[in-house]
Amino acid sequence: MTDPDFRPLRTLPGQAAVEIVDQTQLPHRWVTIRLSTVTEAAHAIRAMQVRGAPLIGATAAYGLAIALASDSADANLDAAHALLLETRPTAVNLRWALDRCRSAVLALPSSERAAVAWREADAIAAEDAAANRAIGEHGLALIKELAEDGRPTQIMTHCNAGALATLGLGTATAPIYLAHRAGIPVHVWVSETRPRLQGARLTAWELRAHGVPHTLIVDAASAPLMRQGRVDIVLVGADRVAANGDVCNKIGTYEKALAAREAGVPIYAAVPSPTIDWTLGGGERIPIEERGADEVLLPAGDEAIAPSGTAVANPAFDVTPARLLTGLITERGVCAPDALASLFPKKTGAAGR
Amino acid sequence: MTDPDFRPLRTLPGQAAVEIVDQTQLPHRWVTIRLSTVTEAAHAIRAMQVRGAPLIGATAAYGLAIALASDSADANLDAAHALLLETRPTAVNLRWALDRCRSAVLALPSSERAAVAWREADAIAAEDAAANRAIGEHGLALIKELAEDGRPTQIMTHCNAGALATLGLGTATAPIYLAHRAGIPVHVWVSETRPRLQGARLTAWELRAHGVPHTLIVDAASAPLMRQGRVDIVLVGADRVAANGDVCNKIGTYEKALAAREAGVPIYAAVPSPTIDWTLGGGERIPIEERGADEVLLPAGDEAIAPSGTAVANPAFDVTPARLLTGLITERGVCAPDALASLFPKKTGAAGR
Repeated sequence: MTDPDFRPLRTLPGQAAVEIVDQTQLPHRWVTIRLSTVTEAAHAIRAMQVRGAPLIGATAAYGLAIALASDSADANLDAAHALLLETRPTAVNLRWALDRCRSAVLALPSSERAAVAWREADAIAAEDAAANRAIGEHGLALIKELAEDGRPTQIMTHCNAGALATLGLGTATAPIYLAHRAGIPVHVWVSETRPRLQGARLTAWELRAHGVPHTLIVDAASAPLMRQGRVDIVLVGADRVAANGDVCNKIGTYEKALAAREAGVPIYAAVPSPTIDWTLGGGERIPIEERGADEVLLPAGDEAIAPSGTAVANPAFDVTPARLLTGLITERGVCAPDALASLFPKKTGAAGR
Repeated sequence: MTDPDFRPLRTLPGQAAVEIVDQTQLPHRWVTIRLSTVTEAAHAIRAMQVRGAPLIGATAAYGLAIALASDSADANLDAAHALLLETRPTAVNLRWALDRCRSAVLALPSSERAAVAWREADAIAAEDAAANRAIGEHGLALIKELAEDGRPTQIMTHCNAGALATLGLGTATAPIYLAHRAGIPVHVWVSETRPRLQGARLTAWELRAHGVPHTLIVDAASAPLMRQGRVDIVLVGADRVAANGDVCNKIGTYEKALAAREAGVPIYAAVPSPTIDWTLGGGERIPIEERGADEVLLPAGDEAIAPSGTAVANPAFDVTPARLLTGLITERGVCAPDALASLFPKKTGAAGR
């Protein structure tokens, strides 16, 4: 594997369009969709055909470039920015990517905007792939420290912070793929990740595609496995990280952090820098997306799991306080959760606003 | 509600048979099944048509009585005992009920055995209903302490330790039903309980049937809700409790206990005395049932959530150390988890064997 042999987003040479994989169809069908309007791009994000903080950011950037290809006036730039921004509330990569593309073109004449926005989207995608790789190398070093001769290193992950969530090797999965490629035996505990089951539907699928041994569990089995000494390290992704290191990620991350602390299992969040929200001093103000009841009531197919009309609460994310994590793995290295500023000294002026 | 208006097991006057509700059909269909052979009784337990530690025990007792009605010789008594005992490994009520019925008839002439076994099964059922009621009263006192004027007391439960799991008001649900009946406003957070979704399929169903306000969540939402101060008390059941107070219950209980401790939320297990295994000094030797992969892969209907052939680990229960629980609610009162001996002084001689 020099690159993932599947990519959740591809550009189409010579076209103001991108091709995505409809991830709602996985693991059963590999269906690609062409996004050639900003409306289609916004729909793909909102409907979670693309998901994962880095991929959401890149798709939004391409969506803005696609919008400018048809109409590069200020009004359309603003409308496209607003349309894409409102698709999902939690992943800060979305606003980061949109603001970056808009800033890149705002002072330019209309005739140059589409091309520059496209190059910016390409840069965001390329930087994400590079960040994945760097996170992979830093995480690989952690796995090497845990590896014992012959015995597979037991890695637990949650949701999908994998190649399907990024433009590269994934965030939490990058160290796993690099270890596997380096011949270090690993086994991955994949928690299914209710309600949308991205662990089962996506992570199990991509680990299988890459030949990485793995076992699927229900989310509630994570804590007992840690208590039983059957987990060496927990690697998760992030949707938004506050400047103090509080990590907002898929619901279920917080309970894994509690269980890891209790069992003495190291737990790291893989955090590419666009996922850091330097404007937030702590995680308590991160907006948590509340999604629809059907995600809970209809886990697979048309058979409801509870009586019709049952009230449902469905928060999609939770916040893990920095103190519960062992560290953060960024493209610049591994740091204590409360020491992000040491890796990104220029950014910290914005923190605490 | 003087009694639950639905019962998961009924005797049939004048017949050596019982009628159960096939709980695998809930919440969509109320299907009753007549058990008139020991093979049918064993199947009902193994297939989880009846489930819940107290109901498993009672069904096994009636199963033994049904077996003796057709053939009361020692060989058949032993065969029926063995057949029923092997159906499920974790709930200790199963062995307790079977041993009790066998002991009651062993010294009797064949002609008297069936009738005595039946009376013993009736006694087990009646004692369970009475224990539920007593647990309900003791738990109600805890709820009253937490109740504040006007605001519903927020109670979280897991799996189904309800009327459907017992011969009465349920164990964890008994305090809830008594509070509701007494006009104390309560709201119940029901965690769905993957993989078999007994929270969604059974607890939501029976709370609805009794008019108790409730909201369904995925299991992983439990810990964040506690952290946010939205839970006043956690009430769970138990499948087997060691003499030291370690509680084996449906998988997901342990993580709830970790989250409750972190958030300062009181958490109690409702434990009728037949669920206590006095022969075990600690929870580490409680056998944890490992169930099939399909329970995880096929949550509802025929659509698998992971690629065909995905490896699955599916432990059905976990063990919560006594130190993580606030207390145990037994029919004799509430005690600290490590103080069961104070409520059952005659039993403790067996502990630590």
